[in-house]
Amino acid sequence: MNYLNDLRQLLRDDQVSVSESVRELHSKNESYHTPALPDVVVFPESTEDVSRLVAFANDREIPVVPFGIGSSLEGHAIPVHGGVSLDFQRMNQILEVRPDDLLIRVQPGITRTEVNKELKKYGLFFSVDPGADATLGGMAATNASGTTAVRYGVMRDQVRDLEVVLADGSIIHTGGLAAKSSSGYHLNGLFVGSEGTLGVFTELTLRVYGIPEEMMAVRATFPDVESAVQTAVTILSVGIPVAKIELVDELSIQKINAHNGTSYEVTPTLFIEFHGNTAGLVQDAQFARELALDKGCLIFQQEIDSKARAQLWEARHHLYYAFAHSVPGKRVMTTDVCVPLSELAGAVRNAQQIVQELQLEGGVLGHIGDGNYHTLLLLNPNDSEELARAEEANARIVEFALARGGTCTGEHGVGLGKRKYQQKEHGEAYHLMATIKKAFDPKGILNPGKIFS
Amino acid sequence: MNYLNDLRQLLRDDQVSVSESVRELHSKNESYHTPALPDVVVFPESTEDVSRLVAFANDREIPVVPFGIGSSLEGHAIPVHGGVSLDFQRMNQILEVRPDDLLIRVQPGITRTEVNKELKKYGLFFSVDPGADATLGGMAATNASGTTAVRYGVMRDQVRDLEVVLADGSIIHTGGLAAKSSSGYHLNGLFVGSEGTLGVFTELTLRVYGIPEEMMAVRATFPDVESAVQTAVTILSVGIPVAKIELVDELSIQKINAHNGTSYEVTPTLFIEFHGNTAGLVQDAQFARELALDKGCLIFQQEIDSKARAQLWEARHHLYYAFAHSVPGKRVMTTDVCVPLSELAGAVRNAQQIVQELQLEGGVLGHIGDGNYHTLLLLNPNDSEELARAEEANARIVEFALARGGTCTGEHGVGLGKRKYQQKEHGEAYHLMATIKKAFDPKGILNPGKIFS
Repeated sequence: MNYLNDLRQLLRDDQVSVSESVRELHSKNESYHTPALPDVVVFPESTEDVSRLVAFANDREIPVVPFGIGSSLEGHAIPVHGGVSLDFQRMNQILEVRPDDLLIRVQPGITRTEVNKELKKYGLFFSVDPGADATLGGMAATNASGTTAVRYGVMRDQVRDLEVVLADGSIIHTGGLAAKSSSGYHLNGLFVGSEGTLGVFTELTLRVYGIPEEMMAVRATFPDVESAVQTAVTILSVGIPVAKIELVDELSIQKINAHNGTSYEVTPTLFIEFHGNTAGLVQDAQFARELALDKGCLIFQQEIDSKARAQLWEARHHLYYAFAHSVPGKRVMTTDVCVPLSELAGAVRNAQQIVQELQLEGGVLGHIGDGNYHTLLLLNPNDSEELARAEEANARIVEFALARGGTCTGEHGVGLGKRKYQQKEHGEAYHLMATIKKAFDPKGILNPGKIFS
Repeated sequence: MNYLNDLRQLLRDDQVSVSESVRELHSKNESYHTPALPDVVVFPESTEDVSRLVAFANDREIPVVPFGIGSSLEGHAIPVHGGVSLDFQRMNQILEVRPDDLLIRVQPGITRTEVNKELKKYGLFFSVDPGADATLGGMAATNASGTTAVRYGVMRDQVRDLEVVLADGSIIHTGGLAAKSSSGYHLNGLFVGSEGTLGVFTELTLRVYGIPEEMMAVRATFPDVESAVQTAVTILSVGIPVAKIELVDELSIQKINAHNGTSYEVTPTLFIEFHGNTAGLVQDAQFARELALDKGCLIFQQEIDSKARAQLWEARHHLYYAFAHSVPGKRVMTTDVCVPLSELAGAVRNAQQIVQELQLEGGVLGHIGDGNYHTLLLLNPNDSEELARAEEANARIVEFALARGGTCTGEHGVGLGKRKYQQKEHGEAYHLMATIKKAFDPKGILNPGKIFS
C-alpha cells in the first residue's frame, strides 16, 4: 500500500477509505465465495474521478475492482488480488429520461427499483429483474436477466450505449441513441457481460418499455416436473407471447409457503404472466390453459387484479431469500445452467437426482422459457465436506448442460465460481477471449482473477 | 498471382476459377461502388476447405473476401485489394432443424427464402427480411435487418452460434444452443456485423419463431410525413406490439404504383402488420386506428386475408427494385441512417429538403419503428457530377443523424461507403475497434479496406 499517499492526491479525503469495517464490507458479496480484502475503498463521484483513478492504477499496476451493491452470486466484486475497490454508491443518479425515445440514461450505482419508481411517472418500465435489487452497472457487467427475459430480452438487449473508462483511463462511448446500428464492431455487446475485466462503466443508456395495457398472472400446478416443463415448451412453440414463465419445484414451494405464509399446493408449479390488451390476454390465457390441461395440469389459477398478481410474483421473487433464510447459518450455492428447450425436462430431473444422491437440500426453479434454471443448494460454507458435495453437484449439473450445447451460466456470470468451466465450454474461442482481454488491458489491472483462471 | 499454383494444391480444380467472367461477377455487387477484380475465385465446400484456404492466405498475406450473393449495398464483397474471392454458393445447406429448440443450423450460402420454405413445414419462420434475398452468412456479416426488427430484432438477435474460421485458419464456435448466456465475452455479437474483417463464417445456428396464429396488415394514409411518423411513435409508446411499421413517402408510392400496377393514393403512408391471436389483433388494430385518426389519418385499410396481405407487403418489399428499374441506366444510392424516435419526423423532413435542394430524384421510406429510414437516390454512376450531388446528400443526411445521437448505418453496414463516417460516429471507440481488428487479424488479410479506411 505504498501507493496510498499518491492515490489520496487524486480525490477528496472523504472519497478514500482504509477503515477495517469499510474494507470488510467490500471483501465479499452474497455468494458463498471466500472473502478477500481490498487495500483501499474509493468512492468516485464522476466519470473524471474514475478516469483519473484507473489511469493511476494502470500506471502503478494496481488491481481495480468495481463494486455495485454486492449482490453478485459468483464473487465478482471480491478483490482476490487486493488493490482498489471502486464503490459506485455515489454515482447513482438518473441523468435523463427520454420518454419519446423509450430511453433512460443513468449512472451505474442506481438500482433497478429506483429506476422503475421514476419511470412509472411516465408510464414506462425497465424490464430486467434479477432476484436482487442490483445496481444497473452490476447488471450490465454480468449480463443479468431474470423472469422477463423470455419476452423483453436480457440486460445486453437493453443497452444502447455505455460510457466506459478503459484501462489507460481514456473514456469511450460504445453505442448511441439509435435503436439499431450496423456501424462498426458491437462494443455494447462486448462490454456487457465483461464483468469489469475490459473497462469500468460510468454511464448507461438503456431501453425502456411502455407499461402494457393489461397484465394477467397465472399459477398452474402439475403432477410432475416433466408435465410442467412440457407445457412451457408447448406454450412457447405455438408462439403465445408470455412475458414470464417460471418453474418452481416441490421443495421450493415449501420454502415459499414457509417464508411468505402462503399455502400453495406442494407440487411442481408454473408461474406465468401475460402482457397485452384485455381481449388478447384472455384468448392467450385460454389457449395456454387448454395446452396445460392437455399435459395434466391440476389447477390453473388466473389473477388479473394487480394486488393478487403482485402477491403471486412476490412469492416467486423472494425465493432466493426464502431459501437463504430457511436454515440459520447456511448460505446458498446456486447453479445457473441454461440448456436448449428440448433438453430442459431431462436436465431438471437430472438435477433433482443429483441433489438427492449427494444428500443435499436443494430446490429447482427457473426461467424455463429460456431453458435457464437454478438449483438452490443450502450449505454451511465452513463445513468443507458439505461444500465439496455442493461443488460436486454444481459440477455435475454443469457437465450435463455442456454436453447438450448449454452454458455453465445463463445469467449470474462467471466471476470466480465458473472460471473452471470456461475452457471446456468455449474450446478454442476461450483463447480468443484471452486475446481480447490482453489487447484491452495489457497490464491486467481490471478485475484480475475473474472469468480467466 | 504467383501464388496460384500453390493455391490449386489445396482444392479440386473445379473449385478454383480465374476466368475473366467469373472474376468479373465477383468484382461488384448491387451498390453504386466502383468494381475491383479478385485475382481468383474459390468455391469452398466445407469448413475444412475454408480453413485451409485462409491459413494459406494468411501465410502468404493474400486478401480473402467472402462473397454471398452480391446483394450488399455498400460494396462489402468488392475485393478492393485483389486477392481471393471466397464464394459460398456451394455451402448452402440446411444442416439441422431443431423445432423443439426453435433453432436452425445452416451453412452461410443459403438464402433467407430457402430457409423459410423449409421452416414452413414445421410451422416456423425466420424473421429477418432485408429487401434482397440475401444469404444468411452475408446477413450476419452486416447485421442486416428489415421490416420485422421492431418486433423480432435484428440479425444479431437471432444468432445463437457461429462457426468461424479465424485469420490463422483455426476454427472456433462463438456461442452455443442455450437461449441465454453470461459465460465469457459475447463473441456472437462481436462477429455479427464484422463484415468479414475478423473471421469467415462457415456455419450459423439461428433462432426461429412459431408462425403467429393470425396476422393483420394495415395501410394507413396521412396528409403529411409528420403525422405519419407521429402516429408510429405513439403506437410504439403505448406498447402496441406491432410486427412491422413502415413509412413510404409520396414519391415512393408513385414508384410502387408504377412498378406493381397498384393505384394507392399518392400521400405519405404507413404499412403496419400485427401478429397475435384474433381477438388481440382486432383490439390492437382498433386502438392503432384511433391513434392514427387522432393524428389526421385519411384512410385506414385493414387486411386479414393472407392474399391481400401478401399483396400489400409485396408492394413495400419491391420498393428498392421499383426505384432501381424506374429509370433505365440509373443505379440507386441509398442512405441508411437511424435516429432516436423523437428526431425521426424532423430527420425525414430534412432528408426530403436536401433531396430537393440538390435537385435529385429520391424517395424516403423506412423501418420507422426503429428510427431507421432510407433515402433512395437515383443516379447515373458514370455521371460524376450527379454522383457528387448524391454523395453530398448522403453526407448531409448522415451529419444530421450523427448530431442527434444516431448512426450512419442502421442495417446496411459500413463496407466502403460509410468508412469516412466511422471516426466521427465512434470517436475514441474507433481506435478500440482498430485494436480488435489488429489483435484478430495481425496481417490484415480479412476483407481489407472495409470498415476501416
